[in-house]
Amino acid sequence: MLETVDLSLSMKKKEYKSALDDLAPRLGALQRRAREEGVPVLILIEGWEGANKGRLVNELLLTLDPRGYRFHAFERRGDEEYPFLLPYLEVTPPRGEFAVFSGGWYAEVLLRRLLRGEERSDCTAAFRDICAFERQLADAGGVVLKFFCHIDRKEQKARLKEREGDLDLAWFVTPEAWEENKRYDDFLLCAEEMLSSTGTEYAPWTLVPATDFQYAAWKILSTVERVLDDCLARKRHPAQDSLLEGVSDGESALLSSMEPEGAMEDQEYDDRLSELQRELRSLELRVFREKLPVALVFEGVDAAGKGGAIRRVTESLYPMNYTVYPVGAPDDQERRHHYLWRFWKNFPRDGHVAIFDRSWYGRVLVERVEGLCTPEEWQSAYREINEMERHLSDYRTVLVKFWLQIDKDEQLARFESRGGDPERSWKLTPDDWRNRDKWDLYQTAAAEMLLRTSTSYAPWTVVATNSKRLARIRILTAVTESIRRALGQEGRRKR
Amino acid sequence: MLETVDLSLSMKKKEYKSALDDLAPRLGALQRRAREEGVPVLILIEGWEGANKGRLVNELLLTLDPRGYRFHAFERRGDEEYPFLLPYLEVTPPRGEFAVFSGGWYAEVLLRRLLRGEERSDCTAAFRDICAFERQLADAGGVVLKFFCHIDRKEQKARLKEREGDLDLAWFVTPEAWEENKRYDDFLLCAEEMLSSTGTEYAPWTLVPATDFQYAAWKILSTVERVLDDCLARKRHPAQDSLLEGVSDGESALLSSMEPEGAMEDQEYDDRLSELQRELRSLELRVFREKLPVALVFEGVDAAGKGGAIRRVTESLYPMNYTVYPVGAPDDQERRHHYLWRFWKNFPRDGHVAIFDRSWYGRVLVERVEGLCTPEEWQSAYREINEMERHLSDYRTVLVKFWLQIDKDEQLARFESRGGDPERSWKLTPDDWRNRDKWDLYQTAAAEMLLRTSTSYAPWTVVATNSKRLARIRILTAVTESIRRALGQEGRRKR
Repeated sequence: MLETVDLSLSMKKKEYKSALDDLAPRLGALQRRAREEGVPVLILIEGWEGANKGRLVNELLLTLDPRGYRFHAFERRGDEEYPFLLPYLEVTPPRGEFAVFSGGWYAEVLLRRLLRGEERSDCTAAFRDICAFERQLADAGGVVLKFFCHIDRKEQKARLKEREGDLDLAWFVTPEAWEENKRYDDFLLCAEEMLSSTGTEYAPWTLVPATDFQYAAWKILSTVERVLDDCLARKRHPAQDSLLEGVSDGESALLSSMEPEGAMEDQEYDDRLSELQRELRSLELRVFREKLPVALVFEGVDAAGKGGAIRRVTESLYPMNYTVYPVGAPDDQERRHHYLWRFWKNFPRDGHVAIFDRSWYGRVLVERVEGLCTPEEWQSAYREINEMERHLSDYRTVLVKFWLQIDKDEQLARFESRGGDPERSWKLTPDDWRNRDKWDLYQTAAAEMLLRTSTSYAPWTVVATNSKRLARIRILTAVTESIRRALGQEGRRKR
Repeated sequence: MLETVDLSLSMKKKEYKSALDDLAPRLGALQRRAREEGVPVLILIEGWEGANKGRLVNELLLTLDPRGYRFHAFERRGDEEYPFLLPYLEVTPPRGEFAVFSGGWYAEVLLRRLLRGEERSDCTAAFRDICAFERQLADAGGVVLKFFCHIDRKEQKARLKEREGDLDLAWFVTPEAWEENKRYDDFLLCAEEMLSSTGTEYAPWTLVPATDFQYAAWKILSTVERVLDDCLARKRHPAQDSLLEGVSDGESALLSSMEPEGAMEDQEYDDRLSELQRELRSLELRVFREKLPVALVFEGVDAAGKGGAIRRVTESLYPMNYTVYPVGAPDDQERRHHYLWRFWKNFPRDGHVAIFDRSWYGRVLVERVEGLCTPEEWQSAYREINEMERHLSDYRTVLVKFWLQIDKDEQLARFESRGGDPERSWKLTPDDWRNRDKWDLYQTAAAEMLLRTSTSYAPWTVVATNSKRLARIRILTAVTESIRRALGQEGRRKR
């Protein structure tokens, strides 16, 4: 692939300047159009050490309006504290903005492989996750442009030497850069593999001959201009299809068939609860020590008791190690990002417990039922969520997901009891009553969600919560068991 | 101060439980009231190792609605990369929310003093900055509550020993905790000094006897309840005074008296520009190597050429090391925070150049003139901004501030030229014309700003930009000189 690149291509300074005079205003206009149409644009500049990536990036940035872009240069990371893609996900561009990246996910995979001796199979998994990530951005209406700046070994060596001879620049020539030159053929092989594994229709690579600076800059700028022009021309808003498409009533059987469970005596409940909380506290300390990330997801029917259940979990935890994320409607900033963005930011770091009171499943529940997204969008969300959870799980994040279910009569009783209690009446909103009117639609959506997102790595636990006590015990039991199992696996993995 | 605390105070479990049943709903109601009235609440829990700060924090968190608080536990920081207060500033609560802190700015100052042997005078400077920071929060309508959990040396020793005997907890007893016990009297002295230096009317300390857990928890919860109740009762929105109060016309003389400067020949300009850009590039590499933070601020009359001037600076920089922050109207999230918050987040880290296209000075310019804040607010902003810039400067941040000035005729000519050029007409907005109508008000505001915020550590450079070329050369000269001077001082400091 890379040997087909004609490295002798060059461009005169004057010729470049006149091309730039032509390109710059067109790029400016495209940037304003992308803003108006709310299209996020991600541009990644990769390539060899010494290929002048920094200066090439700057040529691009100088043509852009600073009010509409952010540039991110990633430095090599030390010890990981979170799944590989997370820091990149967090800085994906919101709608209408550009994000320009240098030294991101690709550089990380290559360096891990070549400098830290990671297995080829790990790279394959990383490339798979990268493709899923880029496809998700493209599916959400984004444009993904990737450039690989290519120079040959001789040219690279000459440039590194030249820099070393410059008082200002010598400091920046790292041993890794020389390593890359020494093992140029190894790097080339890996780069080829990367380019072919991740060059997709939705996020293609452009190979940039970078021997001549002007030619490389022109190649990047003109490609950005051409591709953006194409993409913006093709953009059309998908027709809003019928709200109920794809909803079938039969699936709700799953939930209504749940056996109602009995009550639990005071003393038995108290004993069992303190026992489980003691165990959870002790497990939490191990989670912290062994740097395990834990995510607990609570979804369920309104008034099914999510808050109370979460409280029974947090009562026994140290506040340093957990965070509860109550999830409501997205705010302005969140609305401008990919719908998963606000969760990416909050996934647990190593040794932390993140508790989601409602979650990313809103996409296939409330957003589906209330028509806040298109049917295509919520339908593709099942796969997108599964991909995301697999990425978390591969990083050994413990994912425990609860669906809390009460029946319709019990919900009415609870709403009425809340409404009648001055200290709790604020908990009951008109939305709750409106959602209740759509009970069947929500049940159908929940059933489909449970079916399509119960995976081996992130299964759902459905809990009947007509009896709050039994439910809380069941939830604490599931949490402690999942964590204990994961700690056990960790133990084995280490041996 | 601390010896007056009666450490024998205690509370029976049952008594505590019944007090809690009474307090929890009242705290919940106060939290909802704080949200409705948009009052940010900051609660800090400090104290001795072994005083059970974590569990005490959790007792407080459990009474709060998770939709309205964030808890922040700060771990000891390693090498600093930014001014001491910055990470804390970033997580101050937005309006209507609670932020609960443990191990924040106070712990950091104490530990630096006691474990890293920092000078007493450094502590004094830190306490001064802390008081300014807390006063700013209070002045902006916030409530600041600080607790110091006190136990005596014997009790601390017993608790550390007990933890060491517990398999789960032993891991968490650090050598620093034992150090604190061994040098208890030193720590006590420093804590006393801290409590008296930073116990202010707007952010008082509450001393908490923490021998008995229930008593300590009750003391914290009941104090939060009482103080919040008081503060919320006293909250009243300051009357919107006349827009123009405090504006006097005489001050604008400063600007109109500037001598118009001549033009510059093509060749001379090109030569001088490349020379300065080359020098700036070389300085930038040193800035990066020597980890100097640099902030460049560009303010000025509309169409005075801020964008073009910034471009001449960024053309010569590496994109990894600089970021341009275009500052417009604050977004939803920013509006809910202190007005300086969105800048705190973007101050340059070590070795980086942050370029602000408009800045925090909007408070005393557009917000003043357009009546977007009260006269009290913009009047106190001068002091607040000076305090903030001193904090940055004490951390050795290089601050270079430019005011770009053109005369009223030149502005008209530039507006008309923009309006007539299809590629630049988007740059001209109705706002520009509206601002032009208030030319005198803006000039007066600018003059007062220049007078009141030109300090020895962050002086303004006023640049007449009727001649763009001369102006750009002057700006680049000022930037390179300021950086060169700062690097020189660094050099001397190291020797």
